[in-house]
Amino acid sequence: MEAKERMNDTIRVAVDAMGGDNAPEEIVKGAVEAVNEKDNITVILVGKKNKIENELNKYRYRAEQIEIVSAEEVIDCDEAPVMAIRKKKDSSIVVGMNLVKKGEADAIVSAGSTGAILVGGQMIVGRIKGIERPPLAPLIPTSKGASLLIDCGANVDARSSHLVQFSKMGSVYVKHVMGIENPKVAIVNIGAEEEKGNMLVKETYPILKNCNDINFIGSIEARDIPTGAADVIVCEAFVGNVILKLYEGVGSMMLHKIKEGMMTSIRSKIGALLVKPALKETLKDFDTSNYGGAPLLGLNGLVVKTHGNAKSNEVKHSIIQCVTFSEQRINEMIKEMLMNNEKIN
Amino acid sequence: MEAKERMNDTIRVAVDAMGGDNAPEEIVKGAVEAVNEKDNITVILVGKKNKIENELNKYRYRAEQIEIVSAEEVIDCDEAPVMAIRKKKDSSIVVGMNLVKKGEADAIVSAGSTGAILVGGQMIVGRIKGIERPPLAPLIPTSKGASLLIDCGANVDARSSHLVQFSKMGSVYVKHVMGIENPKVAIVNIGAEEEKGNMLVKETYPILKNCNDINFIGSIEARDIPTGAADVIVCEAFVGNVILKLYEGVGSMMLHKIKEGMMTSIRSKIGALLVKPALKETLKDFDTSNYGGAPLLGLNGLVVKTHGNAKSNEVKHSIIQCVTFSEQRINEMIKEMLMNNEKIN
Repeated sequence: MEAKERMNDTIRVAVDAMGGDNAPEEIVKGAVEAVNEKDNITVILVGKKNKIENELNKYRYRAEQIEIVSAEEVIDCDEAPVMAIRKKKDSSIVVGMNLVKKGEADAIVSAGSTGAILVGGQMIVGRIKGIERPPLAPLIPTSKGASLLIDCGANVDARSSHLVQFSKMGSVYVKHVMGIENPKVAIVNIGAEEEKGNMLVKETYPILKNCNDINFIGSIEARDIPTGAADVIVCEAFVGNVILKLYEGVGSMMLHKIKEGMMTSIRSKIGALLVKPALKETLKDFDTSNYGGAPLLGLNGLVVKTHGNAKSNEVKHSIIQCVTFSEQRINEMIKEMLMNNEKIN
Repeated sequence: MEAKERMNDTIRVAVDAMGGDNAPEEIVKGAVEAVNEKDNITVILVGKKNKIENELNKYRYRAEQIEIVSAEEVIDCDEAPVMAIRKKKDSSIVVGMNLVKKGEADAIVSAGSTGAILVGGQMIVGRIKGIERPPLAPLIPTSKGASLLIDCGANVDARSSHLVQFSKMGSVYVKHVMGIENPKVAIVNIGAEEEKGNMLVKETYPILKNCNDINFIGSIEARDIPTGAADVIVCEAFVGNVILKLYEGVGSMMLHKIKEGMMTSIRSKIGALLVKPALKETLKDFDTSNYGGAPLLGLNGLVVKTHGNAKSNEVKHSIIQCVTFSEQRINEMIKEMLMNNEKIN
């Protein structure tokens, strides 16, 4: 049991070994890659023990950095989330979240059912007191680096008070995890002017304008998101989900078209060989897997959702991301922010 | 006045010569290109007479195919739309829309203020009786061709009955203007299952499912829009506007990145020269200007909005689009659809 004793500066990350399209192979591989890259991480792989062991046998790593906690059930993506979380007590998501709840892990990373992760995060890990709704906040690539898109799927039909909290939590995250001083916050809108928008945006805009603790720069139109015009992009979850998925969809279709175009003649095929290395380098910035997963902010512990089709690289980055999050004491900062707001009101 | 007499099969299109970033130069050029391509179009250029004449003097065309109607005011993009339409009676948009209202033009094309066009369309041209809200419906490029995105900016905070009408009008348009039999209709959602979504989508989904006059295929996630999974993509205007603008934004940023990547080394520069012609050909399908503008459906006449930065090619296609619209009697079909629905209810 010595390995389980808590070292002061070691971050303990529970990883749902059974979640996602490539579980457990890529998940276990990513976990191994993470511990081999960082000494101060312990990964707790949660899932079917024999399957995890079979995978682990393929790799070399320091034994004290990886533990297994057994969970024999799996929540499928098409299960109703609330019911699944309630009934499947021995599922990798529920067992993993309970580790966070009990303080046996600092964070959990899962590529499993988004719905179950959102519900489990709220029901098991629980919200920080004062947080109305925990938003899912992925980083999306831009021509300047990356922006935080918040909320992106956790809370549809949000109210303006939710969007205000999202803006503040997003600012804290971007400042401390990404190191951007005074991050620019913008609200997604269908025009640049204050009077534009739907009811929710019109209601939220003036409140954000009066927040002294964020650098609110106004509306952002969707066409300006890829240019990196704002660091924190605030929107209601339905819109955020559309943005995230369309980003991926348009990007992959264009790459497909370009590859297709390059294969149409001998001339273009030769050209393709010559441009390939340079293109690969440029488009690397566009690979979302380098940014790790999306944190669910405002919970009593860190819950990170990675893509359902995540490969080991994304899993690795998602685990390492938990270290920055913990080291930067993001949750303490969110609590501080809430306390300051209370003092003001 | 002989030229103004109505020929049976000639379509009369009013064109706002003063609207958009490139007015009047590109607008007039596009009008000339349209009439030089199609014998059965008469274009009525609406705007400052001397400016239009100066531009027209640059080109050759059959004089009876282009008329000028004077309008000395211009509505700017930053003016409040309702006020502008009410006060600027001699603006190119108001004068042009009145031509449609009085039956002196079949359609109007404008690259001017979207807000003013939407308001003018409703206030001057007027809705078809029974249509609750007229949606703006652009075509967006997909890997299979193009899909109709409806609504895309006209009516934020829509109700489910609006979305149902959008679906039906969109089906009529895609079938008769694009020639797609039994077009697939899908509602934008954040998951594939019927129980997913925000309140509006959850309310609309079962109604669409029960419509016998459309081919409803269920939800579409934003990532599947670029693959052409549906022909008619139905959503509320705020979401539609985000989709349209993000489409443009991600596309142009990726092209920029790719060009940048190709310029990084001598090797890649040579490669770029070789792939360029093939790439240009493939990416041509992606040029939205080939699809003309976005019709505002459900009005007593055709109103087409083109991009604010439209060049002559888009203006030309927008004018020609009006011919198909009129020849296919889209408005009569929309009226028929409404009558059939009344019979059912």
